[in-house]
Amino acid sequence: MIYRSGLKRHFRYNIVCVFFVLLISTGLMAQSDPPFKPISADIIRLPSKILGEDRKIYIYAPPADTSMPGKRYPVLYVLDGDNHFSMIAEYCRYLSRSDVKVMPEMIVVGIPNTNRVRDLTPSHSLFDFYGKPDTSANSRLKASGGGNNFLKFIGSELISYVDQHYKTQAFKIFAGHSFGGITTINCLLTQPDMFDAYIAISPSFWWDRGYVLNLADKKLTSDRIINKMIFYSDADEGSSEDGAAFHTDLLKFYTIINQRKIAGLAHKYVHYPEETHMTEPIKAYYDALRFIFNSYPKKEQ
Amino acid sequence: MIYRSGLKRHFRYNIVCVFFVLLISTGLMAQSDPPFKPISADIIRLPSKILGEDRKIYIYAPPADTSMPGKRYPVLYVLDGDNHFSMIAEYCRYLSRSDVKVMPEMIVVGIPNTNRVRDLTPSHSLFDFYGKPDTSANSRLKASGGGNNFLKFIGSELISYVDQHYKTQAFKIFAGHSFGGITTINCLLTQPDMFDAYIAISPSFWWDRGYVLNLADKKLTSDRIINKMIFYSDADEGSSEDGAAFHTDLLKFYTIINQRKIAGLAHKYVHYPEETHMTEPIKAYYDALRFIFNSYPKKEQ
Repeated sequence: MIYRSGLKRHFRYNIVCVFFVLLISTGLMAQSDPPFKPISADIIRLPSKILGEDRKIYIYAPPADTSMPGKRYPVLYVLDGDNHFSMIAEYCRYLSRSDVKVMPEMIVVGIPNTNRVRDLTPSHSLFDFYGKPDTSANSRLKASGGGNNFLKFIGSELISYVDQHYKTQAFKIFAGHSFGGITTINCLLTQPDMFDAYIAISPSFWWDRGYVLNLADKKLTSDRIINKMIFYSDADEGSSEDGAAFHTDLLKFYTIINQRKIAGLAHKYVHYPEETHMTEPIKAYYDALRFIFNSYPKKEQ
Repeated sequence: MIYRSGLKRHFRYNIVCVFFVLLISTGLMAQSDPPFKPISADIIRLPSKILGEDRKIYIYAPPADTSMPGKRYPVLYVLDGDNHFSMIAEYCRYLSRSDVKVMPEMIVVGIPNTNRVRDLTPSHSLFDFYGKPDTSANSRLKASGGGNNFLKFIGSELISYVDQHYKTQAFKIFAGHSFGGITTINCLLTQPDMFDAYIAISPSFWWDRGYVLNLADKKLTSDRIINKMIFYSDADEGSSEDGAAFHTDLLKFYTIINQRKIAGLAHKYVHYPEETHMTEPIKAYYDALRFIFNSYPKKEQ
């Protein structure tokens, strides 16, 4: 608060905020920008008994705070780690800077794929994006349906590894896109207490003729979901004639949550008509973080 | 185009697009995600005769394309390199991926500060954010007014260094935030041909009682600006009573451009009422890239 002493009292609070921001952003303050450093991650190989294979995991941890050696951090777990880990880690690092400070510093865990169809589908199905059975001999869909086993790996093996080796707080976020989106929603529906907040960007509700949407209809009840958050979104994906209908399906999901008025589930839905399925995560992961930390106190240093 | 052969002709084009996206995003295609790698940058020390000091510069270059050894890349120069270089490099890398492909691969040059007030102000002034003269003995404003010399450094020394040492195309973008925003606009006004596209995020038009806005009123004419682009934006900065008025000032800038119908200047203005001065760059740099490359062909591999 020492920087406040020279201000006249008649300035409104928002002006005072602007003042602090400007002091920093215009370089008038002694504080210098932290020098550029690339996002560095520990790349570990975690043997999984549940999956019967070693899994590569990326872990970004904030730099040690020498003034607070006991400091602990919430953790964000993100699926499709090769696609989205470095972007999310970059967001978390920037948004928790002392001159930005709209969320806490965070540990980010990226989970890259070995067999994406196996791990990120909650049911076995040969029905493709068009609602037609894929009977080809080498169909990747044959491996589908390992999603619940994969959640078991995350819940039993991965989270405990991270908690043992990093300075974690209890608060955890689970983030996914597309197949990753139905995976995070499946987790909220079947094991809601594994995480505190969920992010589902363009979830592939078309999977198995609406398996996860039907599950939501059955499982989304007030007595099961307490003190959770979910951010979900879609882009301009359009629809196929008999199969996928991202926007329509997500509106159904929104309606289920909204009509039941589940007090224990704070939720936000955003539609990004100008984004594609693949550009959407850039906007949506940012908006999701801002939603999840919307009550985070903005400190003035 | 080989993946297209199995599709029935009656699918609409947008569905076809979704199909390609989904093939990739759902892991059904053989193509695997490129493994996570942190943004790596060359950190060079460039001796500047014009500034009379060595300048540290960050340069991100796309990985070499062995199939196209002669491939060359457009270049984005970003001010406040310590704040925004890694985020923008991350955007450029992700958005140019083969399965996203909404812009070309790009070289990103980050310019960190030594004396920000000196380099990023186009005129000498002791008037502060509140419109009051800062007469304190150690006022940082005393150094102000080196902006045009700094542009000379960029135009004469930095760009030629980058062109000599990297595989550059002629197309160049100049990006800045706050004081960096008035710097890029000052460049557009005084030396429009140094860059092809300009980004000015919450430009500090309050500087020197509206110096850059007045300059815009004088210099923005059809015969000087040919085939250029500018993206500019502001957030919830509010205003001080006698000094800064980000939103009002930027609307004036928008009005100048719009009323004069300068055919050689494509422009886009975005207001982000939910963002702060410091969170805005995350959204605005992304939207700026999408605007600048809005006619970039989306290829299907």
